Amino acid sequence: MDSPAQVRQVCRSGAWTSQTSGQAPGFAQANLCILPKEYAYDFLLFCMRNPKPCPLLHVLDEGQPVFGSDVDVRSDLPQYRVFRDGVLQDTVTDISSLWRNDFVTFVIGCSFSFEEAMSRAGLPLRHVETGRNVPMFNTTIACEPSGVFSGNMVVSMRPMTPSQAVKAVEITARYPRVHGAPIHIGSPAAIGIVDLTKPDYGESVEIWQGEVPVFWACGVTPQAIVMKSKPKLCITHAPGCMLVLDSRNDELSVS
Amino acid sequence: MDSPAQVRQVCRSGAWTSQTSGQAPGFAQANLCILPKEYAYDFLLFCMRNPKPCPLLHVLDEGQPVFGSDVDVRSDLPQYRVFRDGVLQDTVTDISSLWRNDFVTFVIGCSFSFEEAMSRAGLPLRHVETGRNVPMFNTTIACEPSGVFSGNMVVSMRPMTPSQAVKAVEITARYPRVHGAPIHIGSPAAIGIVDLTKPDYGESVEIWQGEVPVFWACGVTPQAIVMKSKPKLCITHAPGCMLVLDSRNDELSVS
Repeated sequence: MDSPAQVRQVCRSGAWTSQTSGQAPGFAQANLCILPKEYAYDFLLFCMRNPKPCPLLHVLDEGQPVFGSDVDVRSDLPQYRVFRDGVLQDTVTDISSLWRNDFVTFVIGCSFSFEEAMSRAGLPLRHVETGRNVPMFNTTIACEPSGVFSGNMVVSMRPMTPSQAVKAVEITARYPRVHGAPIHIGSPAAIGIVDLTKPDYGESVEIWQGEVPVFWACGVTPQAIVMKSKPKLCITHAPGCMLVLDSRNDELSVS
Repeated sequence: MDSPAQVRQVCRSGAWTSQTSGQAPGFAQANLCILPKEYAYDFLLFCMRNPKPCPLLHVLDEGQPVFGSDVDVRSDLPQYRVFRDGVLQDTVTDISSLWRNDFVTFVIGCSFSFEEAMSRAGLPLRHVETGRNVPMFNTTIACEPSGVFSGNMVVSMRPMTPSQAVKAVEITARYPRVHGAPIHIGSPAAIGIVDLTKPDYGESVEIWQGEVPVFWACGVTPQAIVMKSKPKLCITHAPGCMLVLDSRNDELSVS
């Protein structure tokens, strides 16, 4: 699909329920986190304090489900996850029946946005080349807490050679609103990752001879935080099943 | 004075009550806005939605007056302004007697941080050269509202030649956490400024033949917003009388 509106439409109708990587090329995709207002201050401050995993693109007004040209956060993602008391209770394709007037929606940048720039620079994106969801891992890197929210960062991983990794740092540093520069390069053990072939979210990709794993802060972090911090209710996107926005990836870069 | 701790100490003792421009060179100075918790969510979201006038550096926990090595927001600024119901009621040199456990402190980036980089590049800073406070103006540029907070942007103005203005854009664009690139260049009338010789805050500076006024979003904006939005209580820095931080200006630039 070429246009963001088209992707959102097929999600809204229920015709598309799988991951969105590669859809509407050139346009930004976003992580979603919806919380009752009682948690909104703590979560907003959590995002401000942890801009690498949680770079905020939009925060909707209390109870507001629609924004921009025609984006409905209740129906326009392929799949949602519903957490109650920190436990993943359900995966659904529409949350209209769950919607409440005290819901606050947080739209968070996604690394899919800088992948396009990486690709233009000839850097490998193994998960894209092999048609998989990017591998994501829980880590031991503590986020800065805010009120009821605390926990560790989730990272996405892309394998590349050391010289490609340098180029990848240069490129992604220009995209602070979609996670920015890597958080770690090399030794997975140093950030608490035991087995690179067993991601906690997404799918495994092969690391070739001479390549190192390069890790970026990931927008699935709020889901790990929610599992630990246990708000009564939280609705997120399903990993890889993003909200496709009308803004272009290039609008999210700096200078 | 050379060190941030030294500046804070003389403010704390009451020995220094004037503006801080040029003090502790190389170190960041910040705007301050303190609000009761009931307003904190709306204000935090206001800052997130208006990052050019309100780039947040730190948000302290509810009731927390001390942070970093030894920064006490109750005493370490030369002068504070106390607003009640949107009206400037008092200017004081210490707010310890007003402190409440429900106060949330917002520390906001200040353009003094990029002035050092401008100066290194040989750009003129007329207010510094003439020993004045930078001229600041109310504008008709509307901020994006959030809850109870709405109103227009305040800008600071520095005169320079058009080619210097280009260089100034390049330099300050690298400092998004301290207001970033200019918000406007040239015609003051286009942003609602009637008389450049009569700033609403700070002091007037001369504009030489062949120079244009260059305008940056300013951290005094929260004070204009407070005057319009009338929270029951709000405490800010007095214009030009900033909080001197231990972080270096160069830490606030991007790549």
